[in-house]
Amino acid sequence: MSEYRAPTREMEFALRNLAGFDEMAKACNYEDASPDVVAAILEEAAKFAGNEIAPLNRSGDETGVRLGEDRCVQTPDGFKQAYRQYIEGGWAGLQFEAELGGQALPFSLAIPVQEMIHAANMAWGLCPLLSQGATEALSENADETLKQLLLPKMISGEWTGTMNLTEPQSGSDLATIRTQARPDGDHYRITGQKIFITWGEHDMAENIVHLVLARLPDAPAGVKGISLFAVPKFIPDADGSPGERNDCYALSLEHKMGIHASPTCVMSYGENGGALGYLVGQENQGLACMFTMMNNARLTVGLQGVAVSERALQMARSYVAERIQGTAPGEREPSPIVRHPDVRRMMMTMKALTEAGRGLAYSGCVAVDYAKHAQLDAERRAYFKRRADLLTPLVKGWCTEIAQEVTSLAVQCHGGMGFIEETGVAQLYRDARILPIYEGTNGIQALDLIGRKTIRDRGLALQELLAEMRATAEEARTAAALDGCRIEAFGQSLQQLEEALQLVLDSSANEHFVGSVAFNFLMLTSTVTAAWLMVKSVLLAASENEGEFLQGKQVSAQFFVDHILPRCAGYLASVQAGDDSIMALPETAL
Amino acid sequence: MSEYRAPTREMEFALRNLAGFDEMAKACNYEDASPDVVAAILEEAAKFAGNEIAPLNRSGDETGVRLGEDRCVQTPDGFKQAYRQYIEGGWAGLQFEAELGGQALPFSLAIPVQEMIHAANMAWGLCPLLSQGATEALSENADETLKQLLLPKMISGEWTGTMNLTEPQSGSDLATIRTQARPDGDHYRITGQKIFITWGEHDMAENIVHLVLARLPDAPAGVKGISLFAVPKFIPDADGSPGERNDCYALSLEHKMGIHASPTCVMSYGENGGALGYLVGQENQGLACMFTMMNNARLTVGLQGVAVSERALQMARSYVAERIQGTAPGEREPSPIVRHPDVRRMMMTMKALTEAGRGLAYSGCVAVDYAKHAQLDAERRAYFKRRADLLTPLVKGWCTEIAQEVTSLAVQCHGGMGFIEETGVAQLYRDARILPIYEGTNGIQALDLIGRKTIRDRGLALQELLAEMRATAEEARTAAALDGCRIEAFGQSLQQLEEALQLVLDSSANEHFVGSVAFNFLMLTSTVTAAWLMVKSVLLAASENEGEFLQGKQVSAQFFVDHILPRCAGYLASVQAGDDSIMALPETAL
Repeated sequence: MSEYRAPTREMEFALRNLAGFDEMAKACNYEDASPDVVAAILEEAAKFAGNEIAPLNRSGDETGVRLGEDRCVQTPDGFKQAYRQYIEGGWAGLQFEAELGGQALPFSLAIPVQEMIHAANMAWGLCPLLSQGATEALSENADETLKQLLLPKMISGEWTGTMNLTEPQSGSDLATIRTQARPDGDHYRITGQKIFITWGEHDMAENIVHLVLARLPDAPAGVKGISLFAVPKFIPDADGSPGERNDCYALSLEHKMGIHASPTCVMSYGENGGALGYLVGQENQGLACMFTMMNNARLTVGLQGVAVSERALQMARSYVAERIQGTAPGEREPSPIVRHPDVRRMMMTMKALTEAGRGLAYSGCVAVDYAKHAQLDAERRAYFKRRADLLTPLVKGWCTEIAQEVTSLAVQCHGGMGFIEETGVAQLYRDARILPIYEGTNGIQALDLIGRKTIRDRGLALQELLAEMRATAEEARTAAALDGCRIEAFGQSLQQLEEALQLVLDSSANEHFVGSVAFNFLMLTSTVTAAWLMVKSVLLAASENEGEFLQGKQVSAQFFVDHILPRCAGYLASVQAGDDSIMALPETAL
Repeated sequence: MSEYRAPTREMEFALRNLAGFDEMAKACNYEDASPDVVAAILEEAAKFAGNEIAPLNRSGDETGVRLGEDRCVQTPDGFKQAYRQYIEGGWAGLQFEAELGGQALPFSLAIPVQEMIHAANMAWGLCPLLSQGATEALSENADETLKQLLLPKMISGEWTGTMNLTEPQSGSDLATIRTQARPDGDHYRITGQKIFITWGEHDMAENIVHLVLARLPDAPAGVKGISLFAVPKFIPDADGSPGERNDCYALSLEHKMGIHASPTCVMSYGENGGALGYLVGQENQGLACMFTMMNNARLTVGLQGVAVSERALQMARSYVAERIQGTAPGEREPSPIVRHPDVRRMMMTMKALTEAGRGLAYSGCVAVDYAKHAQLDAERRAYFKRRADLLTPLVKGWCTEIAQEVTSLAVQCHGGMGFIEETGVAQLYRDARILPIYEGTNGIQALDLIGRKTIRDRGLALQELLAEMRATAEEARTAAALDGCRIEAFGQSLQQLEEALQLVLDSSANEHFVGSVAFNFLMLTSTVTAAWLMVKSVLLAASENEGEFLQGKQVSAQFFVDHILPRCAGYLASVQAGDDSIMALPETAL
């Protein structure tokens, strides 16, 4: 597998210029997050990801993980050492509070770092991803005692974390969770089985803190009767070190299509009377607590889509530059295949989608920082909260959909070699396939966008975004940097999105309609927003008078408008067609 | 993995009504190919595929193949016995000449049979697929002596066949082939290495006939200096039995993302002085000979796309009917997920694409029969030849692209379970990924369509097809069965296709333009043609007054027009945008 080189220039531009990191840092009083610090962090992270994590990707896929007779999971060679370096580098605590050992930098500054780690090795990266989510959930919801007990070790990275939601009968719908919790003195005893627990058991850290959704004996039925518990693998003793082994074990590991090096566990709680658990937040408020964690995890799963796309793009880029086959137009000798227009079409598609995805993901994460920390009036903070909420399903949904397309094109660029595992690109394709599924399937994301994020506020958040996009379209109309770029199509796509929005609001009482069009509405909204970011990129790059970099942005933007944006006509037509032919057949006749 | 049940009713309709098998059989004097015979063959094949081949799919994937120290390949348990039954059932010779032991039935009648086999087990099915291609190439190009020597055993299925084109430096571009052939008495000696040889070595048959492209010592450079040779693993002795071991061996097997049970070999010829080969056809005419085989193989690879889509549809269908999760619109209790509109959208997409793909593939194969055997005047036969030639890249290209979409949706319908190998649907997704690559990548198919099949005849073949599609659109406009089906969009898509065609013809001298737009032109042409077949299906089903079956066709057609056909606007816009932003960046800046 070719090496991974983090595209730090692209990342810095996406973060600082496109997503507006610098202004956010100012508005949030992140005084340490200066451009120099950003650059230094990206540079160091690039070395760590490229030199330490990336080389373990292919071998990790081949070796996979296994559950030993001691009920411990053995990770592939090198994983443990790399994790040790991750702790020592201070990467785990970048965005967490200084009082508990973190570096108190913005969440969004951790995002390019995480992109690098996932691009280098998505399976490995899932361990920190879940740990960070668990750390957030505790940081926001746990009481002070529990925070002091668990967070210093989690923020240092010495302990990792997991999220335990799914049960065999309870996946997308958490209302049916059956895992039990009963009070036992100042803590609780947890009994039940959880499935699909990512990094639920492993040998990289001395302790694992499981965040587990369960029901108290007197809890109301449905989602209002779910509580959240922290269940450490080893119960911390008086001085905070891992003490007695808790009553929670990995029962088995799943055999998956991809991310072979990430242990996906069936977890068993309370085989011997009940695992000791600490309540996080209030009783019966578990779902809300879990959502603080899930929202950011959705953003970072979208980011994984960008990461795996970038890695696929890099692999394809080196292959098409080296592979000689056929005589390209205007040449006399067999040519590197990059000179064949159809290969170039695939490369440009990968490049434009990856750049747009990165812009979208980073923008969503900067909005989260604004919403949480900005020293602004309540109205303005609410605005950023709406923006973050709106972008979350777009980032998770669209960035993971494009990851399917980009990794598939990367396979295709390799021809027959793409299907051979040794080449490495097949692994990216297999790994990427989990992204539209976990952390809320993309169908769930679509329902989230159309329901909670659009219909509930009668389109307010989307209208705000549309207004900004219209302003950019207006600015673009006369911008020299976009001269001759046929940018009108972007303006037309805004009309398409408005039309779809109106239709959705008009039909919001028709649940079959709403459910039928949700996915295409998600794709339409995301594609238009992505186009906006591409256009904005040109304006921003032009304002810095950047030569080659500007040219790259111009061509990417024009390619996006020429070849990706026209998909919106199809999404809109599909929304307009509604549920008629989707729901017409009796379900037995499908 | 759920069982496979061949959709014989759908297949019979697609073959006889939609593709016009009955009229073809009449025009070609296939007196034995009566409706009763068709029905009986489909019924028997359905049993064989469902009971004998399908149960080996998952175990074959798990076991894979291995090359022993004896340089023989051991196939997974049950494969050999299933192949024995395939021979005994007479399946191998369905479409081949009676004088050599075949059943002299139409090629297109073998197509639903092959669909069943590939749906049951694509990896296993590749062995007969390649054998049939090799048999065709010999049947059409070999001299009588060679035919008598090889074909009876190949038509019975006792011996299998392969096609050996690719070399490390020579994939899509065969001009650079280096394998050598030197005359040696009445035969030749072959020396060289071939890669990606499907079923190049195995234990299911007593002999394997390799068809090998190689160069004679005095051959002109490039594709005009390539000859075709038959190189049997065991040289037939005087009485036609496998005799002396020939000097050709499998060197190694590839580790692939999918079709694990299909041995993909690196083949070595002439390690000990040269493998004995028989010339097939004329010296230096090898590429033309190979193309007779490759064209039909392209159709059958497209058919594999339909097959794997059907299998994926069936798996998803049973999962969504059984899996209870969430409360669907209008219900009070947790529901089978098939009742959720977004799941229904996925199911309808899979169903409509699969039905359209089957119609397209079968139509292409019936056109091949017409072109080859119809007792018609030269002009009419030339018409069918053009039609077959035109449809071939559509079938190979589009049916393998939709297989990516359909198998991915099937994974998605399964949620987390779709990513777990035991479920079985992940295998379909992995297996399907080879389809857009082998037998000419879909990029090559697109260039074939736009170049040889469109620009070369100044759009004649496509104009003929457009005329028929216009007639159907006109008929549909007033057909009661299509009342309220918003079928106008189909008429509009014909205009989109005409527009794209005109643009391509106008810009045919611009190689960068042609190469840049080829893939979107392929997708546009295929999607419109597929929509035509969906509309035609309704008219044909209505003419038979079919109740539930007709309703199914109506809904599928409307869904296709509502939700798939709108993609054409995007394909057309992309063709219109041309090569500007595709070729604009320096190749080092991609």
